[in-house]
Parts: sequence; structure tokens; C-alpha cells
Amino acid sequence: MLNSRWFLEQTTKDEGAFHSLKEIIYSGSSRYQRIDILRTGSYGKCLVLDGKMQSSEVDEFIYHEALVHPVLFLLKSPQKILIAGGGEGATAREALKHPSVSEVIIVDLDMELVNLSKKYLDEWHRGAFEDRRVKIFFEDARNFIQKAEKFDAVIIDLPEPAEDGPAVMLYTKEFYEGVYKCLGESGIAVTQATSAAVNNLKAFTAITNTIKQVFPVVRPYTVNVPSFFSPWGFVFMSKDKDLLDTVPKHFQTGLDNLKGSLRFYDYETHAGMFSLPKYLRDSIEKEERVITDSSPISFY
Amino acid sequence: MLNSRWFLEQTTKDEGAFHSLKEIIYSGSSRYQRIDILRTGSYGKCLVLDGKMQSSEVDEFIYHEALVHPVLFLLKSPQKILIAGGGEGATAREALKHPSVSEVIIVDLDMELVNLSKKYLDEWHRGAFEDRRVKIFFEDARNFIQKAEKFDAVIIDLPEPAEDGPAVMLYTKEFYEGVYKCLGESGIAVTQATSAAVNNLKAFTAITNTIKQVFPVVRPYTVNVPSFFSPWGFVFMSKDKDLLDTVPKHFQTGLDNLKGSLRFYDYETHAGMFSLPKYLRDSIEKEERVITDSSPISFY
Amino acid sequence: MLNSRWFLEQTTKDEGAFHSLKEIIYSGSSRYQRIDILRTGSYGKCLVLDGKMQSSEVDEFIYHEALVHPVLFLLKSPQKILIAGGGEGATAREALKHPSVSEVIIVDLDMELVNLSKKYLDEWHRGAFEDRRVKIFFEDARNFIQKAEKFDAVIIDLPEPAEDGPAVMLYTKEFYEGVYKCLGESGIAVTQATSAAVNNLKAFTAITNTIKQVFPVVRPYTVNVPSFFSPWGFVFMSKDKDLLDTVPKHFQTGLDNLKGSLRFYDYETHAGMFSLPKYLRDSIEKEERVITDSSPISFY
Amino acid sequence: MLNSRWFLEQTTKDEGAFHSLKEIIYSGSSRYQRIDILRTGSYGKCLVLDGKMQSSEVDEFIYHEALVHPVLFLLKSPQKILIAGGGEGATAREALKHPSVSEVIIVDLDMELVNLSKKYLDEWHRGAFEDRRVKIFFEDARNFIQKAEKFDAVIIDLPEPAEDGPAVMLYTKEFYEGVYKCLGESGIAVTQATSAAVNNLKAFTAITNTIKQVFPVVRPYTVNVPSFFSPWGFVFMSKDKDLLDTVPKHFQTGLDNLKGSLRFYDYETHAGMFSLPKYLRDSIEKEERVITDSSPISFY
Repeated sequence: MLNSRWFLEQTTKDEGAFHSLKEIIYSGSSRYQRIDILRTGSYGKCLVLDGKMQSSEVDEFIYHEALVHPVLFLLKSPQKILIAGGGEGATAREALKHPSVSEVIIVDLDMELVNLSKKYLDEWHRGAFEDRRVKIFFEDARNFIQKAEKFDAVIIDLPEPAEDGPAVMLYTKEFYEGVYKCLGESGIAVTQATSAAVNNLKAFTAITNTIKQVFPVVRPYTVNVPSFFSPWGFVFMSKDKDLLDTVPKHFQTGLDNLKGSLRFYDYETHAGMFSLPKYLRDSIEKEERVITDSSPISFY
Repeated sequence: MLNSRWFLEQTTKDEGAFHSLKEIIYSGSSRYQRIDILRTGSYGKCLVLDGKMQSSEVDEFIYHEALVHPVLFLLKSPQKILIAGGGEGATAREALKHPSVSEVIIVDLDMELVNLSKKYLDEWHRGAFEDRRVKIFFEDARNFIQKAEKFDAVIIDLPEPAEDGPAVMLYTKEFYEGVYKCLGESGIAVTQATSAAVNNLKAFTAITNTIKQVFPVVRPYTVNVPSFFSPWGFVFMSKDKDLLDTVPKHFQTGLDNLKGSLRFYDYETHAGMFSLPKYLRDSIEKEERVITDSSPISFY
Repeated sequence: MLNSRWFLEQTTKDEGAFHSLKEIIYSGSSRYQRIDILRTGSYGKCLVLDGKMQSSEVDEFIYHEALVHPVLFLLKSPQKILIAGGGEGATAREALKHPSVSEVIIVDLDMELVNLSKKYLDEWHRGAFEDRRVKIFFEDARNFIQKAEKFDAVIIDLPEPAEDGPAVMLYTKEFYEGVYKCLGESGIAVTQATSAAVNNLKAFTAITNTIKQVFPVVRPYTVNVPSFFSPWGFVFMSKDKDLLDTVPKHFQTGLDNLKGSLRFYDYETHAGMFSLPKYLRDSIEKEERVITDSSPISFY
Repeated sequence: MLNSRWFLEQTTKDEGAFHSLKEIIYSGSSRYQRIDILRTGSYGKCLVLDGKMQSSEVDEFIYHEALVHPVLFLLKSPQKILIAGGGEGATAREALKHPSVSEVIIVDLDMELVNLSKKYLDEWHRGAFEDRRVKIFFEDARNFIQKAEKFDAVIIDLPEPAEDGPAVMLYTKEFYEGVYKCLGESGIAVTQATSAAVNNLKAFTAITNTIKQVFPVVRPYTVNVPSFFSPWGFVFMSKDKDLLDTVPKHFQTGLDNLKGSLRFYDYETHAGMFSLPKYLRDSIEKEERVITDSSPISFY
């Protein structure tokens, strides 16, 4: 029945989703963005920034496990982790499950978002902000990276590059060069990389191609996050050419040693995420666009 | 901008999608269902039955290749194919690419839908209806199967089991028993199996579990069809216990001999489709529901 | 921007309105209906029953003044008033402004609605429930009227006759006969009478024609209530044939003596409300339908 | 059911309407605006400019009769009429019903709109474009008025002053001064004047107040046009101070002599339109804004 309350999210100029709206838990604006915390009938509690679904209680485990674990399992003993964005605390939560991790630095522009997450998004951070290994810096991730020391892994968990939004300069070749520099010798990074839907592929393939200009090993992968309304892209990038081949060797040990269980990620899931359909591999191969500071990508 | 024309599809009581609407190519009702052929800004020409997106010009290749080819490639030399539903002709189109196929029988209830497909959905059938190997019967697929001779493969390409809709009795244990009977000794079948989204899994896992009551080999798999708005489930079922192990042996030969090219399906794609994420395997394993004629499944 | 939260109200199968949604103040179900109290960007706080806008903070004064004052000003000294429905307390609020009124009986089926109104709808009742002249009975208005004593005025302030809803039997000839009987000799009554929009007139003209079967003097009138999304109809009914002619004589005295001010209603407003456009008078004249218990009217 | 095709019109940032969409008769863009001709379930064929409903088959008679006849009936024998805008031809159609009218000049910026109206909007113009008394000029109405000879009546039938739209400069004091100059001594003009809904009154009261700076006699009035989703404002302006008092004298004669019948307008309708509710008169009285070329009004 149309007679009801809905949250509408237009994802492109021609397409969008709607969700029944049970509760407006919080609605306000920080210095950087509009922040809504909604309870929907479809996905439970949802974090919405500038009108865009960021993650939901029901399926955030898919997004956050897919973002964090491929990188951290491929490193035999990751210690220092940088999270760019990730103000909800769930990316840190997953990273902290790896027993070797000794330091997780979250760099998020928006202090108010982090405070709201602490207050309203328990299901996301589950104590991550209180873990003594975690430090938060409220500044632009690009600035932070310029001056940062070496990390074992950089996990880039940012909103989409919305027009005039603060994330636009965090999807360029120059940004990924900064990521390269702040990684240690066998460092790995990963970024969320927008929709991988066949009718809306351009950003994902351009981000992948851009990263290829900077890193010798680049692996795009995709995951179903239903609240995002389309298959979702990620790009894995590594300085170490041999790294991907080491997967099987220590994988099971890593899973066994993890503190806390996983619901989404394991070896079969990993294989599925990295097996891309033909049209997607073809599109990535054909892509020639390189995103730069002078020619950035931005969205509706 | 809200000031526009939209096609809205409510997929569950709490969730749905909207698409900008460029043209209403056809809108009418057959004896069995409301039929709309729309041109959307997001997915081009779309076939919509009873308000539900069935397939779109932009991504029908994903759905139809995912439905047809796993079954037909696993059979070394499939000859007689039965398609239950599939009135748009695209399922037949894919089956006809296999050179060994000598007969494709389409059983679709709705003659008017087939006629409209012939008239408006060129991009779907691309001549399949004129192929001398194809025969169409306008009757209920369940009735047809009861009296049918043996097939090498049965491809079940039906709308979702909507409440009071004609497809409800084509998702029950009794129906799959009919499918079993009309298959030859090493016969394989496949069915589309509704949404595989984490917040809307029940039908997919129940269909999978129901088929397990009938077939010794059952493999659920999922595919991203963005116009369906969520990951989509399929279930593969086989009488022959050894069949799945034979995949790699003749796979490349099959691809090389195909008449016509594929955009979605190849070996890596196949591997990705059949690698399910952990939570999905867990949900399937836990599922106990068996769908029967006396306790059928139906949707909003 | 589509990226937002909306309350949607479908008013007919082909039409509806949407309102930006700022806050869900209350959402629940009583024994009789779904009750939502919402804060919208368009009309502030709104009472919504079964998904239908009942009245809004911004324009409820139009609806309630239009409902109450024509009747009470035409009576020189109204004392005993019956309100059928009116659980928000705003109809009583307006009636209590007339200094001659000594008793206001509210008969509303839904105790929970009245309790929620007391708690959340201050702007509506503004103390009316505490006035010693007011009594509330929680029962079906039709039952109450059967056994009721004589009133000077009956004000019928009910939801639309929704299919299977409790209001369906409160728009029939038999109901208006009950109203007739419980009125004193020069008694007057009024009912809200659904949309008066040119594309959706049938209920308004049928209600008007039904009342004509019972009362000698019947005057349909219309008012703009923007949150109702279309011109809104009311029907005034009187036992006293001479009554309407007496309007001008004591009108200004009545206005001067009123306790509390009016924002909508005065003599010019009254004249406007009762001057119907030609097509509407023509439609009312042509209407032949009589709504009865055995052939009631109900809505989408 | 949400599963359908809809035309959505957002009328303010917080509010809008939706209509079931049966057919997209025409959709394109002229040099000046986006033009859609849609068939809706609620109002039949509709003309939509830049996403805004302009008029509908079902209720355009209300809008056009309300715009044209008060002015022309108040003039005893109107001969030369200027229509600013009015490219659908319905305003001319109504003017031509007055037997004294000898010349109707339509000045509309958009030749393509007029051509589309001729082709698709028969129900609007009904032959008006072929009447030998009608001349069309395709230019900006403001330019035309600067150099125009004297008219008995000017009827301003323009779209709302949308941001950056061509109509913005046709709602200013300077524009109305031009209208004043091109009227004969007892000339009268009228303009549509946007929504008169209580939650969206500012433009209507500002337009009224602006015209008061130019004309000695100004009468705002309102009409229910349901497809416009809210009460609609008009402003009547006259050079002749005595004019409005002459209404009753020749009114019935005028109606009797009309060529063609009216569905909306007659004396009672006239009385209703010009009897404004109290809050509206109060808001108009309090309004101090004067719209000027340097401080124009524009809409969402």
C-alpha cells in the first residue's frame, strides 16, 4: 500500500530504492554532511549520509567483512592498520578480530558522525572505540596520509564521490600514490569502489584502472550488499607481486585464530568474490580512464 | 528530481525500486496476467508481468545465460530441452546456441505474452521462435510435464509464485517430482529461485530444501541481476551424482563449439556463481521447510 | 530530491500525495485502526489514521471551523451538542467557543485515539477534554444515537468510509434517520462528506442525496483543506425549513460574543463556502444514489 | 499497489502529488522547456511543462473558465483581447465565446508548444487556433506588451515563475506597469497567481500586493483546480474604480448571449470565487512584499 512512510534513495538519475520507514532515530546535519539514522522495515537500523544508505544493521556484516578480511588474511601478521573513513566503527571492529593487529588508526573528517555512531550504532562498533589499540583522528584522510608513517594495511571506507562532496579527492591517482607511500614494503590496501551493476559500471572500472597506474597488483572484486541495491565493487591493491598466490597457505590458520566469528567471509566466499563475471572483466580490461585531481569522478 | 515519470516495483512489503519511465511501449492484460512493456532510463526496454520486472534489455543476458548454460555445459551433448515458462524466447535463444540441441519445447501458459514478445521483444528472442527446432505449447507446465516424454534438460523459467498466481503450484515438491520423472537418466534441471538477498532469503532456501527431497544432487547458485534489485537465486538439480565433478573436463570444448558468443558466462563466472557466501550456505543448511501442494509458498 | 523520507497517502487508486517526513512522533495500532502521529515538512504535526491524513497542525483550523461554526451560528442559542467521532478534541474545542453551549458529548469508538490525542495533540484539543461541559463515551456513534436524548446540534466528524472500516455504516440513510430522531425540533446537523474534487465526486454527491431523503433542508458546501489534497465537502442538514434564511440576522452578534477568536470563519467565508461552482451543483442535482445499510458506500 | 507507473510532481520541497500513468503521449524538449503530454488515471490527458502540471483534460475547464470569464463578463462589450502565454489554446477558446470579441492575440514564447497543442490537445483548443479572430505571436510577452497598442482585456496565463525560467520577469511590478499601459481606459486584466494553499501562500499574497502598487482596483480570488493539488489563486486588476460594482447589472445578459456553454462559471460560482476565507484576506492585507525586476520571485 502506498499509504505509508518511506525512505527513498535515488541512486542514479534513473533509478532508486524505497524502504518502509519505522522510526527516525536521529536526523541532523554535521559540519560536513546530513546524517540520518533510520529504522527501516527492510534492513533495520540504517546509517544514511546525505541521503545515501551507508550501511544497515541487517547486512553491514557483508560489507564490512568483505572490505576488511581479504586484506588482513593475505597479510601473515598485520599489525598497523589505517582506516580512512569508517566513522561507524564497524571496519575497526572487523580489523580488531585479527590477533596480530596492534594499532588501528581511524581517520574520519566528521567528529559528529563518530559521536553519533558511539551513541546510536552499537551494532556497528560493538566496543571498537573503547579498544586501547584504536586511535581516532578527525581530519581529511588525504592530508593524514601525506604525513603518515608506514602501515601494513590501509582500508579505505569512504562515501561515494558525490558532487562537491569531501570524498571526491579520495578517488584519484594522486590519492592512491599517497596510499602507496604510506604502506610498508609488503603493504596492501583496499577501497570500496561504488556500484558494480552492469548499467552503472563506469566508476568501478575507472577506479580500478586508476589504481592500476599506481600499484603492481590490483584485484577488483564484488559482493552482494542488498541494501546497496546493486552488486558492490571493491578494489584490492598490493605492492607485493607474489602476495595473492600465498592465499591458500595460511588461510585456515588465520580463520582459526580469529577473535570472534565471521558470518560472511571464509574461503569459499573469498573465491566467489574474486571470480568476476565475463562482462565485468571485459569492461575492466577495456577501461582507459584515469581519475586524477584535475579530472576527478563524481556522482549524482 | 521528483518531477518525473517512474515505474515503481514493490518487491516486498518493506522494499522496492523505482525506474525513470521513458515510454510505455505496451500495456494490457492477457487472460493470465497484466503485461507491460516499458522503456526505462535505467534498464532500457523491460518486460513487466503483474507489476514485477521480468527481464530488461540491459541485463537479461545475465539472467538467461546464468539460467541456461550451467545445465547445458554440464551435459556433454544435450539434445532435447524443455523450457517451462520462458515466453520471451530468450531462454530458448541461449539453449539453441548449443550445437547438439535438436529440440527445444517451450511450454508457456500465456499465448498473448508469446505473441507480444514476438512483436516487441526482438532483443530477447532474436529469431528463436523461427528456429525449426523450437515448438511452443500453450498450456500449464505442470500438466505438460505429467504426460511428457524424457528430456535431457528441463529449464524452469517462471515468474515468482505470487499469491493466487498461476506459478504457485510450480514451486512444490510434487512439481519437482514431475520434473524428475520427465528427465532422462543423466538429466539435469534448473529453476530460477527468487531473491537471494540476506533480508529476503526464505523462499530461496525453502525451494532449495524442497528440491533436495527429490533430487540427489542439488546446487543452489546466485547471480547479480541488477534490474531484479537484489542477488538472484537459481537451483540446479541432477539425477546423476557424478555430474558436477565432470565440469572441467569438457568445459572449454563446449565454449569453443558454441554457436554465438556469451557475454556473461564462462568458467570463472561459473566458479563465482557456485561459490556462495558463508551466511547463505548456513541458511540453506538450516532450512527445514518443504514446499508442498498443500502448503505452497507465495509472495506479496 | 528523491533522497529523503516521505509520507505517502494514496487517496484514490490513481492519485495521491507525498509529504516530507521530519519525525514519527507515534506509530501504533489501536483495537480499531492504525494510528500515526507524524511531523511533516508541509503541514507540521499530522494525525494519520489507517494511512489517511485526518488533520494537520497547519490547516486543521480550516476543517474544524468549517465543520462546527455554520451549524452553531445558525442556531441562536445552541446548548446541547453531540459530536460523533472527533476524538482529537478540536471539534469540541470549536463548539466550546459558543457561550450558550452547556454540554458537549463526544462519542468516539477508540479510547486509545483519545488518549493519544490528549498526550500528543495539544494543538488540537487545547484543554477541551478538561472542560467540565465535555463528556466522552467510547462506543459506536450509531449505537449511541439510537438511544440518545435530544440535541440541539449533531456534528459528525468521522473518517472516510474505508472498506471494512467501522465508519461505513455511518454514511447511510438509516444512520441519518437516527440523527434526525435525536435532534430537537429546530435541530441542525452537519457531516464531513469526503472529497469534492471534480474527478472524485461520487461519494460527496451520494451522501448529499442520501441526506435529502431524510432532512427537508440540506446544504452541501465545500472548503479548501490543502492537506486533504482536494476541495473537501460537508453537508449541512436541518429540520427547520426557515433556518437558513435567518443567517444574517444574528450572525455578527454571534461572532462578537464568541469566546476565542476564529482564523477561518466569518460571514464572507461562510458565503464562499456555500457558493458552489456550477458543475458541482449540476452533479448534486443529477445524483440519484441513496446510500443504505444494504448498499453502503466505501472507499479504496 | 506500489507496483505501477506514476507521474510524480513535487510542488514544494516538502510536498507533491502522484498520478497513475496510462500513456506517455508525447515527451520532448522545446527550445524553452521540457514538454510532456501524459494520460493519467486521475485526470486523463495532461499537459506537463518542466515537470509541472499545467492543465488536465478533466479539470482544465475550471481553470480556464475561472481565468477568462470574470474579466470578460465585467466588461460590457470586450473586443480586443491579449493573452500572454496560453499556448494550449483553451484560454482563447473561452474568450472567443464572448460575441463582442473581435480580436484575440496570443503571445507565447514557445512555437513548439503551440504546434504540439494543435496536434495533441484538441480537447483544449477545440478549433480556437483556426478562428479568424485569433493571431499568434511567438515572442516574450513582456517585450510584446512594451510596444503593444491598447487592449480591452489582458489575460495572463503563464507557468509559475520557476527558478531561471522565462516566466520570472512576468510577475514583477515593472511587468504589471506594462500591462497597465497597454490597457484601454476601462481595461481589465487578470493573472493566474500560483497556489493559494495556507501552507504555501507567500507568492499569491506577494503577487497581489505587487499589483496593488500599479492598479487602483485589485481583487484576488481562488478556485479549486484538483489537478493543481491545492486551491489556486488568481488576481483581477482594473483601471476603472467603479467596475466591480457593475457586476450584477449585465451579468445574466452576458451569460445568455454567450456562444457555447459553461460548465464551471456562473453568478453563484463568481460569488464563491471572490469570497475569500478570513485567514487569506488577513494574509493579503499584511503582505508588504513588492516583487520587482531587481527582486523577483521564483519557485522550487
